[in-house]
Amino acid sequence: MTNHFGTPTITPPMTLADFTIGRTFMSETYKVTADEIIEFATKYDPQFFHLDAEAAKQSFFKGLAASGWHVAGIAMRLFVQSVPVVGGMIGSRGEIAWLKPTRPGDFLQVESTVMDVKASRSRPGRGTIIMNSITRNQHGDTVQTFTARIVIGETG
Amino acid sequence: MTNHFGTPTITPPMTLADFTIGRTFMSETYKVTADEIIEFATKYDPQFFHLDAEAAKQSFFKGLAASGWHVAGIAMRLFVQSVPVVGGMIGSRGEIAWLKPTRPGDFLQVESTVMDVKASRSRPGRGTIIMNSITRNQHGDTVQTFTARIVIGETG
Repeated sequence: MTNHFGTPTITPPMTLADFTIGRTFMSETYKVTADEIIEFATKYDPQFFHLDAEAAKQSFFKGLAASGWHVAGIAMRLFVQSVPVVGGMIGSRGEIAWLKPTRPGDFLQVESTVMDVKASRSRPGRGTIIMNSITRNQHGDTVQTFTARIVIGETG
Repeated sequence: MTNHFGTPTITPPMTLADFTIGRTFMSETYKVTADEIIEFATKYDPQFFHLDAEAAKQSFFKGLAASGWHVAGIAMRLFVQSVPVVGGMIGSRGEIAWLKPTRPGDFLQVESTVMDVKASRSRPGRGTIIMNSITRNQHGDTVQTFTARIVIGETG
């Protein structure tokens, strides 16, 4: 299975100057369990195909599938861990797409690419980046894409 | 506080034919707690301004704020409960924006509007809708917008 995964990048905490267009970051992998799928869906997306493996067989998914928002949460965790930024990253908007279901036992990995960088004119070290994050499973299938506008270098 | 909230709509389970352009749905309200903000962020968005109220004072947010993905999860729960559909709703893609922080003690409510409806030509009862969901807090501020393409009426 692991030959479908990229080698995780190891990156020290970065500032805006470290983000260059085209730079990529590969996350660790994350195993998705049935228990976690059901726990998340119970709280945030209580639809039967995310809650009940038997009932889900009669659904579009033909079996238990993770909520898209659960996949988004896992992808965020992998993204945050693989793209460490001094002061953190604050997303303001983005486009998300779910292309394939995520199943119990799947492993997810996120590859993120810097698409654009805009430094603040008035505030040194601050700026906005556009990041594209692709979440893949152990088969190499893309399960989610997310392109986001992210603020970097903001402090209180 | 409650005068900033709309009256929740009570809607029986719907099929594609019940979605007409311009129809709106108002959810119940949901109280966000510091414990839940921290619990969600620990799992899915471990950045200090979502984890530690004291440290968060030095951040862009100037205090503890919920992860945007946590807000998205709460909004999904409110959306699913206020727009009941036979067979469920499956999002395929969408645009999300976070406009204001969500804080401990905030109450959230979601207003959803049908923007477009496309019935499947080949499969009766199935189709795609575009929904715009606006999440507001108890002050009437919009904290999140999400416009999504959603599949309705799919069965296994």
